[in-house]
Amino acid sequence: MKLVTYQTNGHTRIGCLIDNQVIDLNYAYQSLLESLGHLRAKQIAEAYVPPNMVEFLQGGDASLSLAKEAVEFIQTDSREQKYRVVIPVDEVKLEAPVLQPGKMICVGHNYREHILEMGRELPPVPVVFAKFANTIVGPQDPIPFHPISEQLDYEAEMAFVIGKRARNVSADQALNYVAGYTIANDVTYRDIQRRTIQWLQGKTVEGSAPMGPWLVTQDELGDPAGLEVVLTVNGEERQRSNTANLVFTVPYLVEFLSGLMTLEPGDVILTGTPGGVGVARNPQVFLQDGDVVRIEIDRIGVLENQVKKTGQEG
Amino acid sequence: MKLVTYQTNGHTRIGCLIDNQVIDLNYAYQSLLESLGHLRAKQIAEAYVPPNMVEFLQGGDASLSLAKEAVEFIQTDSREQKYRVVIPVDEVKLEAPVLQPGKMICVGHNYREHILEMGRELPPVPVVFAKFANTIVGPQDPIPFHPISEQLDYEAEMAFVIGKRARNVSADQALNYVAGYTIANDVTYRDIQRRTIQWLQGKTVEGSAPMGPWLVTQDELGDPAGLEVVLTVNGEERQRSNTANLVFTVPYLVEFLSGLMTLEPGDVILTGTPGGVGVARNPQVFLQDGDVVRIEIDRIGVLENQVKKTGQEG
Repeated sequence: MKLVTYQTNGHTRIGCLIDNQVIDLNYAYQSLLESLGHLRAKQIAEAYVPPNMVEFLQGGDASLSLAKEAVEFIQTDSREQKYRVVIPVDEVKLEAPVLQPGKMICVGHNYREHILEMGRELPPVPVVFAKFANTIVGPQDPIPFHPISEQLDYEAEMAFVIGKRARNVSADQALNYVAGYTIANDVTYRDIQRRTIQWLQGKTVEGSAPMGPWLVTQDELGDPAGLEVVLTVNGEERQRSNTANLVFTVPYLVEFLSGLMTLEPGDVILTGTPGGVGVARNPQVFLQDGDVVRIEIDRIGVLENQVKKTGQEG
Repeated sequence: MKLVTYQTNGHTRIGCLIDNQVIDLNYAYQSLLESLGHLRAKQIAEAYVPPNMVEFLQGGDASLSLAKEAVEFIQTDSREQKYRVVIPVDEVKLEAPVLQPGKMICVGHNYREHILEMGRELPPVPVVFAKFANTIVGPQDPIPFHPISEQLDYEAEMAFVIGKRARNVSADQALNYVAGYTIANDVTYRDIQRRTIQWLQGKTVEGSAPMGPWLVTQDELGDPAGLEVVLTVNGEERQRSNTANLVFTVPYLVEFLSGLMTLEPGDVILTGTPGGVGVARNPQVFLQDGDVVRIEIDRIGVLENQVKKTGQEG
């Protein structure tokens, strides 16, 4: 399934996307329960298929199965629905699939061919750093460009989302702990990133993690290796690689990170970016107001956002 | 007030500590409302004085005022209470005051005399890095020592907690955005911290942020400068300094960080540690199973935790 977080009429809820329609998972399951005569349909639906992505993921495989059943029910049910269960996608606003992850963990220097072309050695362990949830914006939001730097840069990344609490999980079991995959732009204020020895301050600026447009579930995507990643700015290609080139694969990252800490449903891991970022080009080129940054990843989709200068208060 | 998060009978709630008694803030306010004849006392208390610290802090000064009123009411009210509003502190378990902060932001190299004695220059901007909420343990918990490293180290730190959403706040207004102060031990796995250029992986290991024992509110503490900070291991002094030596003060940190991102109620900022950490001693000395680490900060209190080796699964 392609899971989305969407906004309509001031409500933010989750759904799945089928044929350009959003099917609201909570309402779908509630409708299924009502059709079976459950008087507590609303409460049961809230418990098993809540309308918030992190809470839904906490329900694990059981909630995902119920959601699938509910979607099948809605697709075959011909009665009028009490709720707006099915909405054309162009009538909603898509948000980042996960809005409030407990952790956002980013991997640096993780594309093999780029490290080798730079004449560096492959790192023995992943370099990891953080962003906070204040960075998240959605696929239909602009990338805010705050007037605190002139060096706004892009980083195309495949991201994965944890679907089951994970602690000391081995790589061969790891994909059972992954809910699915999305696209993230690890937007970076380069000079702020580099003015101290720790990158956090240039990485966690407000609105610097566009993410989406949806979460492709693990069962639908299968193997996360072998996906082409392409980033363009105003149509011009700037980054291109393939997730087959990841030094540290998704299964390895789950093993590595879960050996240090407990990963929770909804935690987002950004797997690193290929060569071609603006700061490494000759001459250097940074993002400008109005630039359109488009990231496409095979079998996941396209994330496209426009850069927009903000006032100091933005 | 000294605000605590406490556990009793499987419930985790917040209270304030007066004369070795915990007064439950939510029950206290509910009792006050009931004494005034409110039929919706429970719901109103839940809305204004919720039993969770982050949610309570979201209520801002208004919720703090109501909580104070409620505590005064309970102290003078002689009727029998429906709920267990007042509990001797030795009948509860104290937890870290904030259990699920949205952000934990740590400041490195922030004690002036230590930087100067090392022959370094004072940094022009703060070095900041992250821990995640999985690190938090309480004042009555052990410090888990996971068998992934031999280099477990302590770092005594004053921490402050945000009490009001803050974006682009100037230093002269900053203390209005601080809910209060607590003590944190920025426990660090040194070799893991240093094996890559980014510190996160050695900083966010499970259980590596003992915090507490309470949150001393801004109005009670006043000026956070001038507080003596002392850390001992098994009674032997290892760190001693004073928050007057902070290169980047609490007001400056609020200005600096809120200029990059939105700070939210419940966010925790660790202000850095003085000289004397184990890795910098000659010879180096790291924490061992059974060691007792005690941090005392003037007018805040004492945070004492014992190191405890865990199995691989711990």
